[in-house]
Amino acid sequence: MTTANTSAVLSSVLEAGGPELSRCLMRTETRLREVAESHGDELARHAAGTLAAGGKRLRPMLVFLCAGESASDALVSAAAAAELLHMATLVHDDVLDRASVRRGRPTVFADGGRAAATATGDLLFSRAFAELVADGGPDAVAALSRASSSLARGELMQRADAWAEDVSRDRYLERCELKTARLFEAACRLGSLLGAPGPGCADALGRFGTRIGLAFQIFDDVLDVSGPTERTGKPRGADLLDGTVTLPLIIARERDPGLASLDVRAVVTGAPQADALCDRIARTGALGDAREQALHFVAEAKAALHDLPLSERQQRALHLVADGVVERYA
Amino acid sequence: MTTANTSAVLSSVLEAGGPELSRCLMRTETRLREVAESHGDELARHAAGTLAAGGKRLRPMLVFLCAGESASDALVSAAAAAELLHMATLVHDDVLDRASVRRGRPTVFADGGRAAATATGDLLFSRAFAELVADGGPDAVAALSRASSSLARGELMQRADAWAEDVSRDRYLERCELKTARLFEAACRLGSLLGAPGPGCADALGRFGTRIGLAFQIFDDVLDVSGPTERTGKPRGADLLDGTVTLPLIIARERDPGLASLDVRAVVTGAPQADALCDRIARTGALGDAREQALHFVAEAKAALHDLPLSERQQRALHLVADGVVERYA
Repeated sequence: MTTANTSAVLSSVLEAGGPELSRCLMRTETRLREVAESHGDELARHAAGTLAAGGKRLRPMLVFLCAGESASDALVSAAAAAELLHMATLVHDDVLDRASVRRGRPTVFADGGRAAATATGDLLFSRAFAELVADGGPDAVAALSRASSSLARGELMQRADAWAEDVSRDRYLERCELKTARLFEAACRLGSLLGAPGPGCADALGRFGTRIGLAFQIFDDVLDVSGPTERTGKPRGADLLDGTVTLPLIIARERDPGLASLDVRAVVTGAPQADALCDRIARTGALGDAREQALHFVAEAKAALHDLPLSERQQRALHLVADGVVERYA
Repeated sequence: MTTANTSAVLSSVLEAGGPELSRCLMRTETRLREVAESHGDELARHAAGTLAAGGKRLRPMLVFLCAGESASDALVSAAAAAELLHMATLVHDDVLDRASVRRGRPTVFADGGRAAATATGDLLFSRAFAELVADGGPDAVAALSRASSSLARGELMQRADAWAEDVSRDRYLERCELKTARLFEAACRLGSLLGAPGPGCADALGRFGTRIGLAFQIFDDVLDVSGPTERTGKPRGADLLDGTVTLPLIIARERDPGLASLDVRAVVTGAPQADALCDRIARTGALGDAREQALHFVAEAKAALHDLPLSERQQRALHLVADGVVERYA
């Protein structure tokens, strides 16, 4: 959601969520700034860039939307915790990818070096848990620690599978679930546990989160191949260049025997070859199929909301979030 | 405590702690192995080396010794959590130092590369919190998250101060407190909170932990300069070569004007120069003074135990641990 469509989607969700949602998100921003500023000048400097760069606040939004109307300190802490965990993984990912820019700003890695970035990520991890301690309760801490372990396992899996020729769809989906969907799930669970729906709705709202997380990641992987750069903010095929085997490539390999036997690492050495590979993947129709798969998860997400004791406003806003991922292609 | 003296110290502590302490530590080993094995083959492989390498289990020992005789599941989880957090920082430190060997075994960095090692560290961080969730309670999670934030802040501070010529004693001690002592403190607090002494003793036992943590780090920094390698298991001056400004160097600079104006980075380019610098530091008498400072903290640690409602066995074993750091020079 880095494109012009992003703000349209966000606006419609904010409108559907009512003034209370905006107030909650503003309180979360304040809380995130407080956390960054209370750990010394260096963290404040490093965290400020990351804070400003990760502008969508999708995970805090899910916390509040799943919680309903209430706006307790515990919810604000939970929303901040989910975002801090997300930020921690971004900072560590940028170290691993040696990324110098994220959303138009220098990364912590570029600004402070890999040591400072690794420590900043660790600190953000720690602060995420610290946020939940005061008012979250054990179920909330457990939800976050499950998500945190999953993120790391997903990252390990992605690096283990880099450049592999035999990544199955199931293994890809397992990785998406670990790397992306579990934190979406945790955000929804946290909202349910600490908000109006209560623990009884946590499983169903968690399922909603998992499904939109999967859809989100698949769409991201489609965008990597489809581009264009003006829309995605990154070069086409950046993930492929990095060795990440995504759903479009997996589907395309099933259809194009030449692709199946292609050693991507040997062939794709720069932007022109990445462009050509993306075109070849697109010609197999893999992008459409991957989109279908993502839409399937969006539909499952919406189905998970069915019959839940949510307000009409919550239902509408959560449906908009689910559709919002699709809107990126409208 | 990597030398022959280590096992003598450990043996005396284990003897003083009685059979219950050994049983608790064995249960912790089992728990650590379970955690490592429950997150996929790759983590199991990476964690196994780290588990085997960090043999002293000083932090779990502090948890049990501060707790007293009881051996609940909650205590075993807390001990495992403290050790997992310690392991996480070791794994990340090895990435930053590009270390290939730790205690005679290949590091995760050497075995799996920096991406796998970063993710493994993150996973160990997450598991530390997950361990505490079930039976720890909010005060325990808060103690661990404070320690975890401190470790990262200390690491940031160390990297920010690398090669600096104006690191004060106070700033050095602040860094030692963040990087090392806060986790010792947390281990003692966890034992107190979850064990027989109860929350009322947590502050005093936390103070004990802080003081022996400070002494431990100062002794470590003295050993870096004093060597010999056969005893410490690492080349003399390894920290100095790395840019870390430690207490012996700070004191020596106060006494040797030539040292104060020396650009360590320019001069110390290898082992022979590191050896010469260590000799020069030693000639100022800085090592003796640094040892005195550490002994001062050991004395403060013991004083913190005074009047606490601990069993005679606990008192004796905790005194042995405090002295054990000194025994490294006996």
